Amino acid sequence: MIAARDAMEAFSLSEEAEPMKIAMIQTSPTNGRVTENLKDAAALAANVDADLVVFPELFATGYLHASKEVAASLADDGSGETIAWAKALSKQLDAAICGGFIWKNGELIQNAAFLVDGDEVLDLYAKIHLFDREKVPFDQGEAPTRVVECRGARVGMMICYDWQFPEVARCLGLDGAQILLHPSNLVLPWAQDAMRTRCLENGVFAVTCNRVGSEQDLTFTGQSQITGRKGEVLARSPETGTDVQIVDIDPTHADDKQLTPNNHRFTDRRPELYGRVTRTS
Amino acid sequence: MIAARDAMEAFSLSEEAEPMKIAMIQTSPTNGRVTENLKDAAALAANVDADLVVFPELFATGYLHASKEVAASLADDGSGETIAWAKALSKQLDAAICGGFIWKNGELIQNAAFLVDGDEVLDLYAKIHLFDREKVPFDQGEAPTRVVECRGARVGMMICYDWQFPEVARCLGLDGAQILLHPSNLVLPWAQDAMRTRCLENGVFAVTCNRVGSEQDLTFTGQSQITGRKGEVLARSPETGTDVQIVDIDPTHADDKQLTPNNHRFTDRRPELYGRVTRTS
Repeated sequence: MIAARDAMEAFSLSEEAEPMKIAMIQTSPTNGRVTENLKDAAALAANVDADLVVFPELFATGYLHASKEVAASLADDGSGETIAWAKALSKQLDAAICGGFIWKNGELIQNAAFLVDGDEVLDLYAKIHLFDREKVPFDQGEAPTRVVECRGARVGMMICYDWQFPEVARCLGLDGAQILLHPSNLVLPWAQDAMRTRCLENGVFAVTCNRVGSEQDLTFTGQSQITGRKGEVLARSPETGTDVQIVDIDPTHADDKQLTPNNHRFTDRRPELYGRVTRTS
Repeated sequence: MIAARDAMEAFSLSEEAEPMKIAMIQTSPTNGRVTENLKDAAALAANVDADLVVFPELFATGYLHASKEVAASLADDGSGETIAWAKALSKQLDAAICGGFIWKNGELIQNAAFLVDGDEVLDLYAKIHLFDREKVPFDQGEAPTRVVECRGARVGMMICYDWQFPEVARCLGLDGAQILLHPSNLVLPWAQDAMRTRCLENGVFAVTCNRVGSEQDLTFTGQSQITGRKGEVLARSPETGTDVQIVDIDPTHADDKQLTPNNHRFTDRRPELYGRVTRTS
């Protein structure tokens, strides 16, 4: 690897900035044991002082579900056990809470993420790129990602394998996201490095919150990562074991899109020449 | 860095494959001395046995040009000294030749790349994302990148800072490119890592051919890189000094876009949800 970090400006908050404390909680759920997993997750968060807490993808249900019926039996329609837990934890910690859950979205059963602050559900996002065996139990999301205001910051959710598609982080960045919230259950070795590129190319922060442990033949790879807007690694969890990382960031730093005095990440773009990217045939 | 390479399948040619020999030649030009720079480049290539030889961006002219007039004085309209040199070298080596040059394209003066095979100019590409001070002497390209056939492979050219825009490699990948030819004059530390992500996300090979040496306050960072379709580094030149790297690749490997048995890099895309990427306002 090129020693990119050496050449990057040190991360520092300006004196005037109001930093946002972001907590990333790497968990180790047991498949199907929602109540226990939520209890374990809350225990890890119990002493966390943060404005925003991010949990992994499907941290309450576990990852592998053999059928739509099995997944449906663990799903939350937005007013179920997981969302209620998130609202309670949000009030307890005075922090917004993000994490992954199985969403019973009308007739659909989806791999989704929530963002909750107090009693308010700020956003629900159903994953638009399903990985591998997820295609069996889950219906893919049909709505684009979006950016919402959360405690003074503009944030957008993406889930795990969405990292492989540069269009996801790009859409969020162009829509004004300062921080990408990225609950994950990673088994491939590439996401953390790719997220460094995603952050650099869009000038945004990202919180890639992964899990650990195994299910059947899958071992989840930990190494949850908070990434800065030049691709620098601000925090990384170990490969095994649960973990809590807390980082202070100033979301407004992500509003500065200059890469050089003469290069702006977004106004330098040539969307009139990118037509191939959105062609559907 | 996550040790991505460890988890990647070893690069190997199948028994039936007809490999393509790709040479990447890292040069050290002197600003303004076109004839000398071409002579030095030819000397480095003299004993190269390859099907395709890639030189850096602006390897004949040097990088910094104070004005359009200065750049114009070193420009080639497609039948000038640099293109003639490339045709002669192509015939001498029996190899296609790619490199960067200043293109007098009608009234425009552009930072461009050529791909020549024998007497045929297969493609000329004018850089669509100008870096930093390039905005003074050069007119930006107004045509999208494109894919052309070259000695049995489908290749597409991009230049240096185009790496920062995922749309460039994406358009080339979707248009069928197997190999991205990427003449560069890199001064930032991020391109080589970003190209690993570009190759992985599109399942293509890339040849990032950089220069060394200095001009005024700029030091070019070498470390030219040939990257595999899972982001693995197949060859890398040193940070200083001229260098020749030759790698055998099978371009048809880039036609396999599966990342898992259930995940295809391109058919998994959701272009109907990426509209933000091509919006011009």
